[in-house]
Amino acid sequence: MKDIRYAPIGVFDSGVGGLTVAREIMRQLPDERIVYFGDTARVPYGSKSQDTIIRFSRQIVHFLRTKDVKAVVVACNTASALALETLQPEVDLPIIGVVTPGAKVAAETTANGKIGVIATESTIESQLYTRVIHEHNPRAQVFGKACPLFVPLVEEGWIKDPVTVEVANRYLEPLLATGIDTLVMGCTHYPLLRSVLRQIMGERVTLVNPAYETARELKSLLEAEGIANDGCRGDAKDTAQVGMHRFYVSDAANRFRQFANTILPFGVDTTQLIHIEDY
Amino acid sequence: MKDIRYAPIGVFDSGVGGLTVAREIMRQLPDERIVYFGDTARVPYGSKSQDTIIRFSRQIVHFLRTKDVKAVVVACNTASALALETLQPEVDLPIIGVVTPGAKVAAETTANGKIGVIATESTIESQLYTRVIHEHNPRAQVFGKACPLFVPLVEEGWIKDPVTVEVANRYLEPLLATGIDTLVMGCTHYPLLRSVLRQIMGERVTLVNPAYETARELKSLLEAEGIANDGCRGDAKDTAQVGMHRFYVSDAANRFRQFANTILPFGVDTTQLIHIEDY
Repeated sequence: MKDIRYAPIGVFDSGVGGLTVAREIMRQLPDERIVYFGDTARVPYGSKSQDTIIRFSRQIVHFLRTKDVKAVVVACNTASALALETLQPEVDLPIIGVVTPGAKVAAETTANGKIGVIATESTIESQLYTRVIHEHNPRAQVFGKACPLFVPLVEEGWIKDPVTVEVANRYLEPLLATGIDTLVMGCTHYPLLRSVLRQIMGERVTLVNPAYETARELKSLLEAEGIANDGCRGDAKDTAQVGMHRFYVSDAANRFRQFANTILPFGVDTTQLIHIEDY
Repeated sequence: MKDIRYAPIGVFDSGVGGLTVAREIMRQLPDERIVYFGDTARVPYGSKSQDTIIRFSRQIVHFLRTKDVKAVVVACNTASALALETLQPEVDLPIIGVVTPGAKVAAETTANGKIGVIATESTIESQLYTRVIHEHNPRAQVFGKACPLFVPLVEEGWIKDPVTVEVANRYLEPLLATGIDTLVMGCTHYPLLRSVLRQIMGERVTLVNPAYETARELKSLLEAEGIANDGCRGDAKDTAQVGMHRFYVSDAANRFRQFANTILPFGVDTTQLIHIEDY
């Protein structure tokens, strides 16, 4: 019987954005192997309904189970906000999302009690960030703002472009006006716009990246459950990093690899295409 | 046995954009009934691979067949460019797309032989517009430009916004420099940006909307096959327009209805949600 400590961690996202979360897990938990799935055939999730996000996420969890993962990280804010609560009781594995860790740290970080959240339309409409922030800081005021053009701008590669600055100004203006001192980047693509967000929000606003806190929470969870990899991976011990992790997508492996290579510190040359609707 | 002349026409798109084509069919063929499907759960298609677009389009044609359609119109440029050629021999129904009619009229319209095509990344990469234009006008020069931010800008509602003008300037600059006299709006969302495109391209450039030519081609096709509706629909004769057409989506009927109501001249209150991956 295999030792579950050496099983991989399943990480999924609607597409490539979740690689920023995978990268953070690799940094903080260098002994853990990752099986990543990006739903590139059905991306984006951010404008779709809860029923659809739940159906898609359930298929993905079924797929990850076939890879014998020991835990699942929902590396997509929209899926964390809309599907995680439904999936948790269905799955007999530890499963965490990015919203709760991000909301917790925002609730603890704010000094003036005013927190902004930028995210997709569906994440904002779900109000989950607001709910979790209030659990940890009942007096906090939370100001949500959907920024639907940010993902297409990042994917177009216009990261520091004047157009992106103008769009960001438009979206962030109402948040600036509220006097927030903390801003949650509630979509995995948004940390790639960090310098534009910093420029507009100024130095006094703390930018929260839920990826960092999610990796920390994953570490605690694995330790608490006694399933953390102790670094003695046996036959996997000498495997180069490129072989440690596995990447699956539902479409267009080439485009995925190009973007993945800009995010991850090593080549993602073994991406495999699967039909996710079969799971 | 039912008379096939009174069967509806199946029209599909990756989402809501194809309603601009449906609207044109309703205008030019007022006696025909439409069964529309928008793949709102998996939208957009424009950045996805040919294999995926073919798989999705095949499922949709299977679905439309269950509605006993007499012909199918692929109202999505990306699906027309990437899937139609594969599907045509598989389907024993007349099936047409929007690319061929749009390319034909552009080839016939140009005076100086220089034609621009703006479309999604996948449509541009397919080179289908170029190929069909050359069949009708071998000496034409065709300049393609993918405009991936146009669809998100339209869906954000920034139709005449300065940001949209700036983005359009950026995309169209290389086309302007070539001296084109004809520009094909090769994505169903783009005609909604007509005034911005007109402002940038000037009065001397002809803007081609493939929807208009597609409806014309459909009309000829139905007449040639002897399956055009003669206006004597029997029990459907007195049905109000709102009941004549049926609308199906794979996600978020509400969002669809809102957008549909801005495009179509009557309410779309009967939109039904289906699971397209079951077909």
